[in-house]
Amino acid sequence: MRHFFFMLLLRNMISSILKFNETLSSSSEVVNPTIMAKINQTWPKLPFTRLAKSADYHIASKELADKLVAKYTHFVLIGIGGSSMGARCIGEITGKKNIYFLDNVDSAEFSHIWSEVKPHLTKTAFICVSKSGSTIEILWNFSQLENLAKEQGCDIIQQSYYVSELTSNPLSNFARKHNRPLLEVPVDIGGRFSVLSPVGLLIAGICGLDITEMQRGAAAALEDKLKVAAICGSFLDSFKRKENITLFWFYNSGFRWFGNWLQQLWAESLGKRTDRDGNPAPAFSTPMIAIGSCDQHSILQQVAHGPKDKFVCFFSFHSVESSQQSVKSVLFDEIKFMEGRNYGELIACQSKATYEALKQNGVSSEFFSLDDSDKSKSLGYLFMFFQLVVATLGEHENINAFDQPGVTLGKEITLQMLKA
Amino acid sequence: MRHFFFMLLLRNMISSILKFNETLSSSSEVVNPTIMAKINQTWPKLPFTRLAKSADYHIASKELADKLVAKYTHFVLIGIGGSSMGARCIGEITGKKNIYFLDNVDSAEFSHIWSEVKPHLTKTAFICVSKSGSTIEILWNFSQLENLAKEQGCDIIQQSYYVSELTSNPLSNFARKHNRPLLEVPVDIGGRFSVLSPVGLLIAGICGLDITEMQRGAAAALEDKLKVAAICGSFLDSFKRKENITLFWFYNSGFRWFGNWLQQLWAESLGKRTDRDGNPAPAFSTPMIAIGSCDQHSILQQVAHGPKDKFVCFFSFHSVESSQQSVKSVLFDEIKFMEGRNYGELIACQSKATYEALKQNGVSSEFFSLDDSDKSKSLGYLFMFFQLVVATLGEHENINAFDQPGVTLGKEITLQMLKA
Repeated sequence: MRHFFFMLLLRNMISSILKFNETLSSSSEVVNPTIMAKINQTWPKLPFTRLAKSADYHIASKELADKLVAKYTHFVLIGIGGSSMGARCIGEITGKKNIYFLDNVDSAEFSHIWSEVKPHLTKTAFICVSKSGSTIEILWNFSQLENLAKEQGCDIIQQSYYVSELTSNPLSNFARKHNRPLLEVPVDIGGRFSVLSPVGLLIAGICGLDITEMQRGAAAALEDKLKVAAICGSFLDSFKRKENITLFWFYNSGFRWFGNWLQQLWAESLGKRTDRDGNPAPAFSTPMIAIGSCDQHSILQQVAHGPKDKFVCFFSFHSVESSQQSVKSVLFDEIKFMEGRNYGELIACQSKATYEALKQNGVSSEFFSLDDSDKSKSLGYLFMFFQLVVATLGEHENINAFDQPGVTLGKEITLQMLKA
Repeated sequence: MRHFFFMLLLRNMISSILKFNETLSSSSEVVNPTIMAKINQTWPKLPFTRLAKSADYHIASKELADKLVAKYTHFVLIGIGGSSMGARCIGEITGKKNIYFLDNVDSAEFSHIWSEVKPHLTKTAFICVSKSGSTIEILWNFSQLENLAKEQGCDIIQQSYYVSELTSNPLSNFARKHNRPLLEVPVDIGGRFSVLSPVGLLIAGICGLDITEMQRGAAAALEDKLKVAAICGSFLDSFKRKENITLFWFYNSGFRWFGNWLQQLWAESLGKRTDRDGNPAPAFSTPMIAIGSCDQHSILQQVAHGPKDKFVCFFSFHSVESSQQSVKSVLFDEIKFMEGRNYGELIACQSKATYEALKQNGVSSEFFSLDDSDKSKSLGYLFMFFQLVVATLGEHENINAFDQPGVTLGKEITLQMLKA
């Protein structure tokens, strides 16, 4: 009997990286059967799901990461959008220092990064990431870094590393020409779905994550079909209620860039004009991000009392809520009742109280708890989980979640202006 | 004749910190007269406008800032929401290092900040900011810093500085008891409208901004009544079109926290359930922020092709677009046409092209150019300008833009849980 209980507990622990609050059921009796059917039908064909299983990318990423960590103290990632966001959020969540993300064309930002690495130039690795290998911002920023380094007598091409498609493209051709390491971004996996390929894994390795555990986490998300179905059902209901903002509220200061990653994933995948048959696409929501108690002092007022146009997803984190760091003595009589309490308690109360207050204000919301005691595994899980949610929403609504036709026009006009 | 032209030019330069694109007119013939009437009627009564004129706060802030800069190398600001956001964006925009913002109760973030200042403890100033002087997160975080410092043999109370109302409250009483410097937050000016009081000015001084020029910029915004009226008219039209997201897109990497400041200002002020007479409040939009070309690779797809529920305000910056940093030689044949071009040119093309592409996609948008060649002045202008816009929108729609009743319930439930 005791053994049985232990097995049950273990099973529960393994299968509950993400837990829901009581109002959202993920039992097979309640989950929308058309969503489940769509999941069973489409997931096996989704290329990015392969990244939870195939070992090749993981081994190549880990090997190169180990070499770079042994050789360099500073790292510059030159990328943008899907070639940078996921890596940037891994950098933030792991708290890794001396890693810089050059993902804009703002010269002030460029100069800041340059001033940080200039004194350590010979100990800096330059990692160029671009799926297509032809993104103008990336080719240009890297050229400028090379120009400036040469003035310092340093040839950074000999310290450069590449992540790109293996097709013939400016970046991969350049890597081959100079005989530099080149990791593969699979051709059939779009930039914003590529974080579990070398695009994210190389940085994960540099930041000290366990890449194998990340993959295990991703595989666990693929097993959580009922959970994905339940959440997709909840989102689709929200869209029907015309809630055109989905607000992801992370009670974890390190998740701001994860929020940016999720925003891109959601917005580029679901913001489409037409469905696959050319009919007007259904209206998906715009994703927004809030962080911890600081944003309770910011946008909460509007969420609680403004128009009921939002669906709020709270995410609490085991690592944050289990913090035993306690305040032994408080300096102010007015908070005597807080003496000896720990940080985990306070933030746990705040997230639950805010969720409760929104419910009482009639705002649609859900509460999710994440067991992130294994950072690598939970992060792999979260990446895969949200990719599956977004892909499933797209498939269910007959949307092509994998292109981005709306950004082409702006690029064309930019080029016209530059070439004029 | 030449003299007349020069005067005209000078006048133009002085009065054009912010310029509009051609479609939004700020001439007195076009501006909505009811908005202008509301401006003339209410602005003289708005307490925060005083901060553009009165010198006392500026002098006190500058004096203390000078002392702190002479004495310390590291700075920790303990605040949250309106007591932190404005200062944090000043820190980001000025690129000041060694200044840390403790504005959450996440122990990982706390530990990170503590590890940064611990080696420099005797050279670190601790600045507690709270208008009410009773915000639990602030009193608690400061207590914990004091506890940890004491273990290191350092009494940080002797290195602490305070910004609060001068009324009897936990923080101001503590400052008085320990005979520590206390700068005033005016009682009648709410936290989110207080950035031009010592709440923001002390940090501005520490970050090397010219506080007098900031005030001049704020005064210039107060002179720009027609511009505020024109933009308010444009926003009100947008709300009528049921565009429930206002997207502020800054082509400046340093403006992320300015965006957060603006989000709080807008959301807490305008997200109200009822108007001043108790009638259901009109629906204001939810503010969202995007940054530079990196977000063209993120949310642009949804803005362009998703539901037409957004009003997009592009902000270009003289300091960014005038960057002469040029790339002498490019490494890739595919971008040969970019050789010798400078960063300013590229980002200027990108912002205008994105604006143009959205117009062609039928998305409501406006384009604003900011002359930020004087950083202090333009920042003072921007703070005051947006405060005026938000206050005017509130007054025009008979909303109390200065309270935040919607955040009370969450605080109460938190306290109930903690005291249970």
